[in-house]
Amino acid sequence: METADRILTLLRREPIVSGEALSATLGISRAAVWKHVEALRAAGYRIESHRSRGYALAAAPDRLLPAEIARHLETERFGRRLECFESIDSTNVYAARLAREDAPEGTLVLAERQTRGRGRLGRSWVSPARVNLYASFVLRPRLAPADAPQLALAAAVAVARTLAPFAATVPVAIKWPNDCLLDGKKVAGILTEMDAEVDRIRSVVLGIGVNLNAPARAFPPELRTTATSVLLATGTRVDRPRFAAALCATLEAVYDRVVRDGFGAIASEWESYSCLTGREVTVDCSGRRSTGTVRGIDPVGRLVLDGANGEERIMAGDVSIVNGYRRKL
Amino acid sequence: METADRILTLLRREPIVSGEALSATLGISRAAVWKHVEALRAAGYRIESHRSRGYALAAAPDRLLPAEIARHLETERFGRRLECFESIDSTNVYAARLAREDAPEGTLVLAERQTRGRGRLGRSWVSPARVNLYASFVLRPRLAPADAPQLALAAAVAVARTLAPFAATVPVAIKWPNDCLLDGKKVAGILTEMDAEVDRIRSVVLGIGVNLNAPARAFPPELRTTATSVLLATGTRVDRPRFAAALCATLEAVYDRVVRDGFGAIASEWESYSCLTGREVTVDCSGRRSTGTVRGIDPVGRLVLDGANGEERIMAGDVSIVNGYRRKL
Repeated sequence: METADRILTLLRREPIVSGEALSATLGISRAAVWKHVEALRAAGYRIESHRSRGYALAAAPDRLLPAEIARHLETERFGRRLECFESIDSTNVYAARLAREDAPEGTLVLAERQTRGRGRLGRSWVSPARVNLYASFVLRPRLAPADAPQLALAAAVAVARTLAPFAATVPVAIKWPNDCLLDGKKVAGILTEMDAEVDRIRSVVLGIGVNLNAPARAFPPELRTTATSVLLATGTRVDRPRFAAALCATLEAVYDRVVRDGFGAIASEWESYSCLTGREVTVDCSGRRSTGTVRGIDPVGRLVLDGANGEERIMAGDVSIVNGYRRKL
Repeated sequence: METADRILTLLRREPIVSGEALSATLGISRAAVWKHVEALRAAGYRIESHRSRGYALAAAPDRLLPAEIARHLETERFGRRLECFESIDSTNVYAARLAREDAPEGTLVLAERQTRGRGRLGRSWVSPARVNLYASFVLRPRLAPADAPQLALAAAVAVARTLAPFAATVPVAIKWPNDCLLDGKKVAGILTEMDAEVDRIRSVVLGIGVNLNAPARAFPPELRTTATSVLLATGTRVDRPRFAAALCATLEAVYDRVVRDGFGAIASEWESYSCLTGREVTVDCSGRRSTGTVRGIDPVGRLVLDGANGEERIMAGDVSIVNGYRRKL
């Protein structure tokens, strides 16, 4: 642990810690203690000096600092290797590079802001600075490419499960395949990219964008009716480092389960979040359209529709609700 | 067309062309003609000077020069954008970079030698200099990742169809999924890599290595019983630029067919090359083994086995023949 991190750990243990005690515990001079405290203040920590009594940690910065995330982390692999950027083009692009360079499974790339954040189907992901979570995980599942959609569905369950306690007043919903909604508006999106041979995945980069504390003005006008954040939906700010660590933990658990037992093992949890079951929908699958009533999801993650021509199972596509009022989704 | 290429074209039309005629046709000085002829000779063209009568093209170099390939090329897209390297780490790695940079479908990367040639499942591909073909094509099929194995099988058909006239005295065989054999020994391998979202392929890099004129000593000793070249199997040298152009043409035709109509459209041609039909085999699929008699291939490219527990359909794996004598494959 670096000296600055050790100072934080000591300050968190007691309301006030004397400079003398810090100096003695860390085996550095009082002047060195002071220099580290100044550096922490520069990084955004509010550390009060109480004359003759010592230092008190009043507040940690609202920043995705590795040390802030690490102290909440309860995982074995996910987030254990962590790179945090103030600004990056795309966390997925960077994580894909790490994946090609043999980064271990669970490697996490975070950024306070993305200049070219990406979404599914070549869309962009609006990524304002210092309010949300833009996370990309390197995964190395022993699966065939055909099974990869199950990972994207699993990730949606992990995001929903992570969001639930942070957005306790509003139910979290999943819109097939893997959008997460609050109040019928999109709060999180998932972009799953893979590097594969035809019969084996070499690596997957799982990109997760979650709108946490974004104010309405952070979204471009055209998105304001369809996008939201936890803060907008619930009125409550999210402790972002704590959220990042919680996401690592749920994702590790859900991912390990699905890789071991298949998506079927968590399909009922996925369905418990689904906002489509029983609704009449149209699914657009690269030009081909299917319409029907959603029955549920099958063990490999296909949406099961009761259509005009009987049951249909759909692997991929864009869903819209027939006669639906978008906010009621 | 560059002046040197135009000179080659003119020299190919007639047995001898005078320097004066070249100079007049191209609108350059006699001295300039001479300089270009010297440059062509330096590139490996054998151009004879017949005093007072002119120049005669005696032989083109046995090199994968763009101009040599282009003059045989009869495709619409495949090989139309072409990069040829004297030496490269891996044509697939370079083509993957071009694919990420929006190279058009059909872009072809060739190299006379690979220093880190790669095969399936993380294996290496032995890539001696100036005797074989190491080719990587950029593809942009509108397919789901689950359909990608069909492309690898299609590529095997294209390679087999291309090889047939060049190795006329020895039947070409395909060993599922996509190894090509002559005399029961491997003559070509295919490595299909993709960059994909879970439900849509962004690009595929199709790597094709074909042993054409490699002598036995070009293979490491441990491969000499299992690998061969067209030269070793038939005693006939292959015109490599002509082979490269022929491969572009068959691949374009087969690929377009499969993307439009699915692998089923060429499954019977694939089966006509298959060396496994009717044989008892064991398929190792990441640790899980299946044994049975090969019935054939199904319309999505799965190997159909009659096993102890009835019919099995296998998407991916490594096949070995039970009680088989490897050379008889």
